Amino acid sequence: MVVGSKGNGLASAEDHTKSKKAQKKEAKDAAKTARKEERKALNASQQHDTGSDDDYSVGKYGQIPMIQSAEIIRREFFHVKQLEPDFANTTVWVRGRLHTSRAKGKQCFIVLRQQQYTVQCLIAVSEVVSKFMVKFASNITKESIVDIEAVVREVGSKIESCTQKNVELHVTQLFTVSPAKSQLPLLIEDAARPIKEDEDMEGLNIRVNQDTRLDNRVLDLRTPANQAIFRLEAGVCRLFRDILTEKGFVEIHTPKIIPAASEGGANVFTVSYFKGSAYLAQSPQLYKQMAIAADFDKVFTIGAVFRAEDSNTHRHLTEFVGLDLEMAFKYHYHEVLHTIGDTFTLMFKGLRDRYADEIASVGQQFAVEPFKFLDPPLQLEFPTAVAMLREAGVNMGDEDDLSTPDEKLLGRLIRAKYDTDFYILDKYPLAVRPFYTMPDPKDSKRSNSYDIFMRGEEIMSGAQRIHDAEFLTERAKAHDIDLEKIRSYIDAFRFGCAPHAGGGIGLERVVMLYLGLDNIRKTSMFPRDPKRITP
Amino acid sequence: MVVGSKGNGLASAEDHTKSKKAQKKEAKDAAKTARKEERKALNASQQHDTGSDDDYSVGKYGQIPMIQSAEIIRREFFHVKQLEPDFANTTVWVRGRLHTSRAKGKQCFIVLRQQQYTVQCLIAVSEVVSKFMVKFASNITKESIVDIEAVVREVGSKIESCTQKNVELHVTQLFTVSPAKSQLPLLIEDAARPIKEDEDMEGLNIRVNQDTRLDNRVLDLRTPANQAIFRLEAGVCRLFRDILTEKGFVEIHTPKIIPAASEGGANVFTVSYFKGSAYLAQSPQLYKQMAIAADFDKVFTIGAVFRAEDSNTHRHLTEFVGLDLEMAFKYHYHEVLHTIGDTFTLMFKGLRDRYADEIASVGQQFAVEPFKFLDPPLQLEFPTAVAMLREAGVNMGDEDDLSTPDEKLLGRLIRAKYDTDFYILDKYPLAVRPFYTMPDPKDSKRSNSYDIFMRGEEIMSGAQRIHDAEFLTERAKAHDIDLEKIRSYIDAFRFGCAPHAGGGIGLERVVMLYLGLDNIRKTSMFPRDPKRITP
Repeated sequence: MVVGSKGNGLASAEDHTKSKKAQKKEAKDAAKTARKEERKALNASQQHDTGSDDDYSVGKYGQIPMIQSAEIIRREFFHVKQLEPDFANTTVWVRGRLHTSRAKGKQCFIVLRQQQYTVQCLIAVSEVVSKFMVKFASNITKESIVDIEAVVREVGSKIESCTQKNVELHVTQLFTVSPAKSQLPLLIEDAARPIKEDEDMEGLNIRVNQDTRLDNRVLDLRTPANQAIFRLEAGVCRLFRDILTEKGFVEIHTPKIIPAASEGGANVFTVSYFKGSAYLAQSPQLYKQMAIAADFDKVFTIGAVFRAEDSNTHRHLTEFVGLDLEMAFKYHYHEVLHTIGDTFTLMFKGLRDRYADEIASVGQQFAVEPFKFLDPPLQLEFPTAVAMLREAGVNMGDEDDLSTPDEKLLGRLIRAKYDTDFYILDKYPLAVRPFYTMPDPKDSKRSNSYDIFMRGEEIMSGAQRIHDAEFLTERAKAHDIDLEKIRSYIDAFRFGCAPHAGGGIGLERVVMLYLGLDNIRKTSMFPRDPKRITP
Repeated sequence: MVVGSKGNGLASAEDHTKSKKAQKKEAKDAAKTARKEERKALNASQQHDTGSDDDYSVGKYGQIPMIQSAEIIRREFFHVKQLEPDFANTTVWVRGRLHTSRAKGKQCFIVLRQQQYTVQCLIAVSEVVSKFMVKFASNITKESIVDIEAVVREVGSKIESCTQKNVELHVTQLFTVSPAKSQLPLLIEDAARPIKEDEDMEGLNIRVNQDTRLDNRVLDLRTPANQAIFRLEAGVCRLFRDILTEKGFVEIHTPKIIPAASEGGANVFTVSYFKGSAYLAQSPQLYKQMAIAADFDKVFTIGAVFRAEDSNTHRHLTEFVGLDLEMAFKYHYHEVLHTIGDTFTLMFKGLRDRYADEIASVGQQFAVEPFKFLDPPLQLEFPTAVAMLREAGVNMGDEDDLSTPDEKLLGRLIRAKYDTDFYILDKYPLAVRPFYTMPDPKDSKRSNSYDIFMRGEEIMSGAQRIHDAEFLTERAKAHDIDLEKIRSYIDAFRFGCAPHAGGGIGLERVVMLYLGLDNIRKTSMFPRDPKRITP
């Protein structure tokens, strides 16, 4: 008995290609056959058994046995987000979580949640719904997954507490599919409460602190803001890849287990490797550069990056996702820097145009100021930044690096002057960059290197790399680096290598700063820091 | 002085949107201004100085100084693959590698290579080319990167040794950009030699063994086959992501550093983590499942996976790239298995249709039999496979797992009977699967689990997972697993979780078997095995 028209015989709740009318028709058909099938599915079920003599709803509610794929049931389910007035008076099946419930006499109101979408449901004593069924409904624990058969009813006044404001579900069947335990370590409504409301009402509302959230991440991730944050994060990766692929880049995969700590050995995790030792890569840079030396011309890679740094700040993780790229150029590293700048511009446009719902969802919990960017992006030289900071009273030398407070101040100054949250700082002092950075041929104190900032925080560091083995050796010596340790790195450039530049971007930082969030643990699904490696 | 019409002022060799005619026109313009600019660029250059009195080519050849981004030169370069007879009699600039050279009297033939494309170039004494310049050309080391200005000439008989068979470049200027050292550990022509040719001619041609290749991967990766293999590998990832995104999946990122060795502690790498210890994840499974419990519904992730297994075989790596997916379903795990099967079908179609050039490139070096698949894919139950193997003389019990030789034999039997290199084996014996695998409700000896094969080798393992904490505990006890060690895993299912299934695919295996290659080290850019963690 097949309901739905898909070729593989499986009905899909996400099938938006069907017309609303066809969906309605199918929903009706489904309703007709549903009871019969439900009884079949319930054969082995332990029925709720409160005086079944007067319970005319028997078989229409209860806990179904653990779904073990005993049989294929071809029932069409609808997604909560689909439920709008054009479904009025049709019968639908929905699988979702019991978000909240409130029983009062002969009726029980349930808010059913599916991801970030919610709809109000009413179970009221009637010809088909017994008082036993209402009681069963009122006892279902929060966060349990339930199957509901219901008639969609249009409502007179909007239901402000739900995302589906114009309809209500009048429940005719109700089954728990996967019950949650009754004591939850945190409630989704608390975890989802807007920051502002928190502040206004102070002690009246329960806050959920960050460690409680992270300890119970499976629950915490169910909030609308978290559903949106990680969908947007997927969007950043997708845009990054699609934009670069379009520009002729090839995706590569670089090893995380490496034989030597390439940049001197600080901040590197050690791994036991059979009878010896190895290290976790702090960046894919050597391998990206080898791919350039191997003629891949333009490459990117997205993967885990490890930093054994004991930094307990709002913006450091010990493991994060690096969006890395490297590109051969003809004459000037600005060919690469323009490509990087354009990639960000296209990414910001993509987020703005395709992830507006997600940005709005995050905005409902957190006070998000829209992210501002210019097209083409603002690009300043390091000395210009130093001059701006000095004018604002900062005392710094020409060859000093920017401190974190300086960077934040600069972000505010640039926002005020240029109205952008995104900018590129070019030509860093040679003294503050790694040995493989190409010096500026016109100014011995500068280098062909750049950092990129969002809202005053660094999200990417990059440079033209030295592609000449002899010069690289010379620069390594000037940095007092043990040549033996970087021999294989230097040797990669002895067989001809195109001039190239690139950079590495921290994914979690980009998402945090794009959304204006205050902590990088909000944009890492399972964050790792010096004090946390669970769950 | 800007040549080219791009908005950012930078000419691009990859700009295929321009008409051939416009390109020709621009090439001519470029030729006009090139000499002037080249002289500018060479201001600081050390000129080749062999009796400059009679050398009327001074300034038209030599080694240019290391490109340090001293200035932006707006010269349009063409890609070797663009050079066809419609460019005849125009002047072009090309940057590529000196693949081979052969000097004879007053002329020197060079094969110029750019990635997998090659073109023949002629430097012959003439009004503009002096004998000194020919001598310079003949002394350039193989694999050096050179800039060539040349007139494209149509040739009478095809040049079979190059990819560009119908044209030859008559060189007018020639500069080394990045010289290679003269003694190369391997030659690209040797590394690229077809396997068959090797066998036919036995000792006459030099073979390059695998360790030499991997020790000098930067050179080895320059062969046409390797250029194609890793582009196709990027294609597999792209297709996997695009197909799943289209099906409503969300990309997630899971931590590689984990607190405990979840499946008993065997085959796990240990990491020093500040003052304690941690482990490298053998799979993202727990985290994918947590994402399902957190309502992400359908998720995938691509990332490094680590196995501390001392297996020195053609198909094991200690670090590989996992393509993992996990998906909630309504009633039966076949909803997921159909999605997985369809994903592979779409991927194989995409590779066939969009990567024909790459497949052909690999085929020129390796004897590749085209990969065969059915649409929809062949799906057999485990007992059917056992029956086929028994009929072929294999002696095995109903609850035995397949050995590697059994799997290969089965692959041949299935290929002979069904004409497919791709198939799904469903319903593995419960006894040979991990504790979290959902048992078959109808047969206590079977489970809701599956493996997927390509050319008789396993490339994916998956199952319906137990989503009920109590039942999971029961099954863990039956497997004598220390419950304390998997407590956080079990606890993830205490707050309501949809039934779900998924699986993990090994990227390198998929590419190796799709292309019919004999060793997984051929499809990992920088492979890691028990004996190798370099380069």
